[in-house]
Amino acid sequence: MSNKPLTECKGWKDLENHHKKMENVYMRDMFTKNPARAKHFSLKLDGLFLDYSKHIITEETMEKLLCLANDCDIEKKRDEMLSGAHVNTSENQPALHTALRGFVDKDLNIDNENILDFVNKTLKHIEKLSNDIRSNENFTDIVNIGIGGSYLGPHSVCEALKDYAGNQNIHFVSNIDGSHITQTLKSLKPKSTLFIVSSKSFTTLETMANAKIAKDWIGSINENNHFIAITANESAAREFGIKDSYILPMRNWIGGRYSLWSAIGLPIAIYTGFDVFKDLLAGARNMDKHFQETPLDKNMPVIMAMLGIWYRNFWNYNTHAISPYAQNLHKFPAYVQQLDMESNGKNIDKKGHEISYNTSPVVFGETGTNAQHAFFQMLHQGSDIIPVDFIAFINANHTLNTHHTQLLSNALAQSQALMNGSTVKNEMHRKFKGNRPSSTILLNKLDAYNLGMLLALYEHKIFVQGCIWNINSFDQWGVELGKELAKNITNIIENNETIQETDSSTQNLIHHIQAYKNKNS
Amino acid sequence: MSNKPLTECKGWKDLENHHKKMENVYMRDMFTKNPARAKHFSLKLDGLFLDYSKHIITEETMEKLLCLANDCDIEKKRDEMLSGAHVNTSENQPALHTALRGFVDKDLNIDNENILDFVNKTLKHIEKLSNDIRSNENFTDIVNIGIGGSYLGPHSVCEALKDYAGNQNIHFVSNIDGSHITQTLKSLKPKSTLFIVSSKSFTTLETMANAKIAKDWIGSINENNHFIAITANESAAREFGIKDSYILPMRNWIGGRYSLWSAIGLPIAIYTGFDVFKDLLAGARNMDKHFQETPLDKNMPVIMAMLGIWYRNFWNYNTHAISPYAQNLHKFPAYVQQLDMESNGKNIDKKGHEISYNTSPVVFGETGTNAQHAFFQMLHQGSDIIPVDFIAFINANHTLNTHHTQLLSNALAQSQALMNGSTVKNEMHRKFKGNRPSSTILLNKLDAYNLGMLLALYEHKIFVQGCIWNINSFDQWGVELGKELAKNITNIIENNETIQETDSSTQNLIHHIQAYKNKNS
Repeated sequence: MSNKPLTECKGWKDLENHHKKMENVYMRDMFTKNPARAKHFSLKLDGLFLDYSKHIITEETMEKLLCLANDCDIEKKRDEMLSGAHVNTSENQPALHTALRGFVDKDLNIDNENILDFVNKTLKHIEKLSNDIRSNENFTDIVNIGIGGSYLGPHSVCEALKDYAGNQNIHFVSNIDGSHITQTLKSLKPKSTLFIVSSKSFTTLETMANAKIAKDWIGSINENNHFIAITANESAAREFGIKDSYILPMRNWIGGRYSLWSAIGLPIAIYTGFDVFKDLLAGARNMDKHFQETPLDKNMPVIMAMLGIWYRNFWNYNTHAISPYAQNLHKFPAYVQQLDMESNGKNIDKKGHEISYNTSPVVFGETGTNAQHAFFQMLHQGSDIIPVDFIAFINANHTLNTHHTQLLSNALAQSQALMNGSTVKNEMHRKFKGNRPSSTILLNKLDAYNLGMLLALYEHKIFVQGCIWNINSFDQWGVELGKELAKNITNIIENNETIQETDSSTQNLIHHIQAYKNKNS
Repeated sequence: MSNKPLTECKGWKDLENHHKKMENVYMRDMFTKNPARAKHFSLKLDGLFLDYSKHIITEETMEKLLCLANDCDIEKKRDEMLSGAHVNTSENQPALHTALRGFVDKDLNIDNENILDFVNKTLKHIEKLSNDIRSNENFTDIVNIGIGGSYLGPHSVCEALKDYAGNQNIHFVSNIDGSHITQTLKSLKPKSTLFIVSSKSFTTLETMANAKIAKDWIGSINENNHFIAITANESAAREFGIKDSYILPMRNWIGGRYSLWSAIGLPIAIYTGFDVFKDLLAGARNMDKHFQETPLDKNMPVIMAMLGIWYRNFWNYNTHAISPYAQNLHKFPAYVQQLDMESNGKNIDKKGHEISYNTSPVVFGETGTNAQHAFFQMLHQGSDIIPVDFIAFINANHTLNTHHTQLLSNALAQSQALMNGSTVKNEMHRKFKGNRPSSTILLNKLDAYNLGMLLALYEHKIFVQGCIWNINSFDQWGVELGKELAKNITNIIENNETIQETDSSTQNLIHHIQAYKNKNS
C-alpha cells in the first residue's frame, strides 16, 4: 500500500462511490434477474459450504472489495504472519497460532527454538497427559482455572464437542467473583478432582486467586498429583507446587485468544480424547492451507472479511450477529466476540496514528432457534441493519430427525425472510422491509475437524480485517488501565482509607461500599 | 404530545442543538469543576444505588431530556400501562406484568376476571405446587421445557439465585436442536425427573416437539405425575395428558418476555422456594411503586431511559453493554438483550407509520471480570463509543472476602478508566481517550428482592424508551415471517421435493442439504 491514509486510497474512494450506486439495490431483484447468483456467490471447502449470495453485492462490488484487499497487501501480510514475522508490532512478537496446527516451515526458529519441534513435543506431552488423566479412574472431575483465552477457547470447544465427551466431567472457573469457585467446588470431592491452572504469566489475578483456593481445598492429599499448570512461567508453577511432568509450556508468540490450539487446549484433549483434539487441529490446518493457497476471490476468510469491511466502513453498520443453529455452540458467539473485538477493537494504526474509520463491530449472538425467540425481532424490523452469519450442520449427532430438519429449516428460513421481506396490506406492523444481509455456513456435521475449520475461518477473517484497517490485531493494551486502577481501589477498600484525589463518582461509590460494609460488619 | 413527528417537536430540536454544544465536553473536566457532581447525579432506592454521573451530561442536559419525556406524555402512558389500558395496540391487549407483582387496582377486571383475584389464586397454586414438588423426594431433577420468555426469564433468575437453591437440580431445554433434549436426558432417570412444559399457546414448535420426546422417555410410569403445564390453552394441556391440578394458567395480557412473574416463574419457586419467589415479586413491586410515584427527575427507570435516548438518538451510539460483576448473573445480559431488542427493535410507530429515528440499540454483555478479558478492549480503545451499565453487589454470598473486594474494585476501576482515559508519552497504543460513559448500579447483595428491583428497573426503562419512540413495546410481529417460511422448507426437505419458486440461494442451500443427505442415507 502507498503511504496514503486508507481512506484516501483509490480502492477506498471507488468503494465509496460504488456504495452510493448500491444504496437502492434490492437483493430480491438481483435474485430474480440472475438465477445463477447463488452458485456464483458460494464456496466450498470439504465439509464447509459458504453461501454469501444474500449480501448487497454485485460482481463489481466483489471486484472492488478485492482491489482494496490488494491495495492493502493482504497476501503479503498473510504470508508474513504465517512465516513468523513480527506482526505483533507493539510487543515485537510473531503470532504463530497457525504453527500450533503444524502449519509452519520446519526450519523456523524463534529465540533459538525450532517451532515445529516445540509444537510436536508439546503435542506429545498433551497426548501423554490427556491419556493418563482419562484413564485415571480416581478423577471424576476436571476443573480448568483460567480466564480470557485460557477460558473461552477451551470452554467453547468442550461445549461444542460435548457429543464426543468421555466419562469425566469438566468445569471452568474463570471469574474473580468468589461464587464461581465456591459454587463449582460445592459438588466436588478433593480426591477425585484434578485442576488445570492456565496462565501464560502465572500471575493473572483471577487465575492465581482461584488456584490458591483450589490448593487449600485439596489440602494435604498429595496435591502435586492434582494440579497441572499451563504456563510460560515454569518456575512460578514449580513454586506453586506443581511437578515438572505436570507443567505444559506456553510461549510468548501464542496470543491468549489464539491459544486453544496450544497446551491451553489440554482440557479439550482430556474431555474428548487426544484424537479428537488432533482432528480439531487438522481442520484448522486445512483452513490455514486454504487461506494461504487460494486466490483472494475464492478465499473464504478474505471474502468474509471484505464483506465485513463493506458493511462496516461503507454502509456504516456497527454490529454483526452470529447465530449457530446448534445448541452445543452456545458459547461460540462469545468466543468470536472476544476474537473480533479484542483483536480489532482499536483506534490506533500500526504506525501509532489515530485512525478516522471504523474498526471492529460489536459482535454478538446466540444459538438458533433460541435467538429467534429473543432478539431476532430487531434483526427483522429494527431501525438498524445487522448482518448475520448463520451456521448450521446438515447431519445431526442424535437420532431426532424431525427435530433436526426443523432446526435446519429455521436457519434457512431466517436468512430468506431477512433478504426477501414481506408486506401485508393495511398491516404496517407486519411489514418486513427485507434486504437485510446474511451469510450461511453449512457444515456436514458438528465434529472436531469441521469445528477446527470454522474457528480458523473466523481467525483469518479477523486477521484480514485488521490488515485492511492497518491495526495490530495481536495486542490488547486496552485492558491494562482498568487493571492498574483496580489495584488502587482494592487497597483503599481493604484499608478502609479515605479517598480524595480521584473523581467524585469513584469516591462516592467507594464511600457507599465502605459505609455499607462498616454498618454491617 | 402534539401530532408532530417526534423529530419535529421542540424537545427533540432542543436536544439536537444541545448535543452540538456537548460534543467537546469532557466528563473529567466536569468532575474537576464540580466536586458535588457524583452526589447530584445519583439516586438510591433501598438496597439499590444508581450512579449516573459518568455520563456526558450537565444539569441542562437532564432538564432537556426530561422535557422530552414530558412532551411524550411519559407519566400518562405509564399510568395507562399500570392501570390496564390496551397499550399493546396491535394485539389489543393490556400489558400487566406489574399486576403479577400485586401492583394493581383491586377492582381491575379483564374479560370478566378480577386481575388481583387471578394473581392471588395463581400464587397460591404456585405455592402449593412448588412446596409439593420440593418436598417430594422422588424428584431429584426438574426439567423446564420452554423457549423465549418461557426459558430466558426463569433460567436467568434461577442462575442468579443459585445461592438460594434447594436440593433438586434444574435443567432448561429450549432449542429445537435435538441435542438439547438428548444431552439433558442423558444423565437423568425417568422416575426421578419432573417436567414443566411452558407455552402460552401450547403449540410452540420447539416446546411441543421437546415435550413429546420427554413424554416418550417417561413412558408408562404414571406420566401424569411427571408433567406440569403452564399455559393459556388448558384443554391442549389436558389432551397432552396433564392432570388439572398440574396445569397452571397464563393469560393473554402476560407477554412472554415479561412472564417470569407469572406461573412461568414456577421453576424459580421450585428451585429456590416459594418465599424467595415472593421476595422477587416484592422487589419488583417496590420498583413499580418507585416508577409510579417518583417525579421524573428522580425516577430511576426514567433517568436510565432518557440517558439511553440521549446516546441512541443524539450521539448516534448503536449499542449498549451490560456487565454484571457477579458470575451468577451470567444470563442476565441475554435476558435484558431480549427484553430490549424484542420490545423496541421496531421501525413502525403506534400509528402504523415508518419511523425515521433509531430505536432499540444492540444490547450485549458478559459478566465482569470475564468481559474485561474478552471484549473490553473495544470498550476502551475501539472506534465506537459503547455506553455500559456496570452492576455490582457490595456484600458477597460467600466468604472469600479478598476475591470480593477485587471484584468490586474492578467494576469501579473500569468505569473510572472509561471516563478518565490516560495517555503515556510516545506510546500511542497505550492511549485511552476516555470520555466513555457508564452507569454504575450498586446493590447491597445478590438476593431475590434486589434482583426483582433490578429486573423491573430494566423493564420500565425499556417501556419508557418505547413511549418516547412511540412504538408498541409489547408485540413481536418480526418473528412471524421466518416461522412461516420454515414450515415450507421443512416440507420440502422432508419430502425431498424439488424447489423452484424461491430465490436461488435458498434453493441452493436446500439442494446442498438434500444432496448430502441422499448421498449419506
